[in-house]
Amino acid sequence: MKSIAVIGSNMVDLISYTHRMPKEGETLEAPSFRMGCGGKGANQAVAAAKLGSSVVMVSKVGDDMFADNTIRNFQSYGIDTKYVQKVLHTSSGVAPIFVNPSSQNSILIIKGANEFLKPADIDKAAETLKKVELIVLQLEVPLETVYYAIEFANKHNIKVLLNPAPAVPELDIEYACRCDFFIPNETELEILVGKPVDTIEEIRDAAKVLLDRGLSNIIVTLGARGSLWLTKDGSELLVDPIKVDAIDTSGAGDAFIGCFSHYFVQSGDVEFSMKKASMFAAMSVTEKGTQFSYPSIEQFNEFAEKHAN
Amino acid sequence: MKSIAVIGSNMVDLISYTHRMPKEGETLEAPSFRMGCGGKGANQAVAAAKLGSSVVMVSKVGDDMFADNTIRNFQSYGIDTKYVQKVLHTSSGVAPIFVNPSSQNSILIIKGANEFLKPADIDKAAETLKKVELIVLQLEVPLETVYYAIEFANKHNIKVLLNPAPAVPELDIEYACRCDFFIPNETELEILVGKPVDTIEEIRDAAKVLLDRGLSNIIVTLGARGSLWLTKDGSELLVDPIKVDAIDTSGAGDAFIGCFSHYFVQSGDVEFSMKKASMFAAMSVTEKGTQFSYPSIEQFNEFAEKHAN
Repeated sequence: MKSIAVIGSNMVDLISYTHRMPKEGETLEAPSFRMGCGGKGANQAVAAAKLGSSVVMVSKVGDDMFADNTIRNFQSYGIDTKYVQKVLHTSSGVAPIFVNPSSQNSILIIKGANEFLKPADIDKAAETLKKVELIVLQLEVPLETVYYAIEFANKHNIKVLLNPAPAVPELDIEYACRCDFFIPNETELEILVGKPVDTIEEIRDAAKVLLDRGLSNIIVTLGARGSLWLTKDGSELLVDPIKVDAIDTSGAGDAFIGCFSHYFVQSGDVEFSMKKASMFAAMSVTEKGTQFSYPSIEQFNEFAEKHAN
Repeated sequence: MKSIAVIGSNMVDLISYTHRMPKEGETLEAPSFRMGCGGKGANQAVAAAKLGSSVVMVSKVGDDMFADNTIRNFQSYGIDTKYVQKVLHTSSGVAPIFVNPSSQNSILIIKGANEFLKPADIDKAAETLKKVELIVLQLEVPLETVYYAIEFANKHNIKVLLNPAPAVPELDIEYACRCDFFIPNETELEILVGKPVDTIEEIRDAAKVLLDRGLSNIIVTLGARGSLWLTKDGSELLVDPIKVDAIDTSGAGDAFIGCFSHYFVQSGDVEFSMKKASMFAAMSVTEKGTQFSYPSIEQFNEFAEKHAN
């Protein structure tokens, strides 16, 4: 099985189901609480691993009780954790999430140990990284590390995918141009380009701004509207969404990236991989949670077969 | 060393230091995060144990990674955890706390396993509980359990202290009357009596409402204004506060209760115990955190000596 390296974040989701948010100075009871493993990097690694990819994770955890739990979680999916290392005197990354009665989320992100993922950590993992087919990156770790990873991938002729999430306005597009795949969602595209992205036309126009700046191609994920692939030579593909009843969209973007990575590494076929990724992301929103909501390869094949008919 | 039983709550404090609270639908980065062991029952047990009391805790934890951590924390202070038991398929009690740049707190409380502390758990611990000098209670566990503990204490002629925190308006004052000590703060007194408590006169009036309803005595903790002891025969004692620069008042009320319990069990002297408790609570607000901010007996004696001069 060809392999993928995810160089990126891990977070512990600390999810409080609340009636409302407490005011300043207020103590308020809330009905329930759940913890889960999350973080964009970790989610993408788990999605690819669940589909059968051989995945190595390069990431940092803190020196708290969340650290071992995160490492065990990776291992439970068969992910190589040799380069998931602890940072002393630092908390693990956490995401306190508040879900209100109408299922709207408010999210805090405290990057913690993720801030300490540095270029030197890529050097440490270099021998392993040189052997992978694809390096997958997001923006929950320092930009210098993302840029260094892109340089590393270019130098060693390894394909590289950048998911510019969460939106970082100061992202240097020169580095995006050095990636084989650049996959924002609408909001991230809007922030990068500074143009509205309400209609498909506006999204196309915004994406073209980036193509004009030197990207070879761009895939924009559009949630319930599917996904759009544009290349600099003017070709375009709109992959229709799979219609499902969405229960919880958290982690759907990561599901797309992880699944796209898996199928692209196996097939080299972008259109095929986008269609698979759309389907996988759709399936993930029909269940609560992030990593928990990602189907196994068996469940996914069954779903894919049903929706092919 | 005479012993104390705390029958009550434990919580994991999940403290996010934020610029502001995220809005609905918003994801917001926050600078740092810290975890700590808390919960009113646990804090009070730790305060007494740090001063040297022999403490047994009767409490419930969930089946998550917080559970073992909480038990280890109790044990690190020498607290007997035989009756700290796990509840399957339930989260431990947690308190997601948000501290803004002006050090104001917003707090969510998810009781989790604490909701499952039942009268039957008191029966299970009965042989141990019969041997203690004082049972200490708060209101972060079901009221039926608090009432049952008061009945148990009365039946076995064990002194019992009720700290009616957090404020529960439907608390049955008949049960408060069956306690040797009833120790609310101003806010809890206000909610129980339904009268304003801004001035010492108003606090005295509100406290007298409860004395008229049958309490033998009441101690009201007044934060930076000290504490007030009133008995039904009309005697009154106002213990002046120790003036300190407050850094973090969280857990100060629990510091008072735990320290009062320790010294009362040792001395049987209410005035002496109130003065010690005032000093201990004052000391606790000069450090960040809850249990971490409680001094050891050595630190406390040194501080007490300085302030006696």
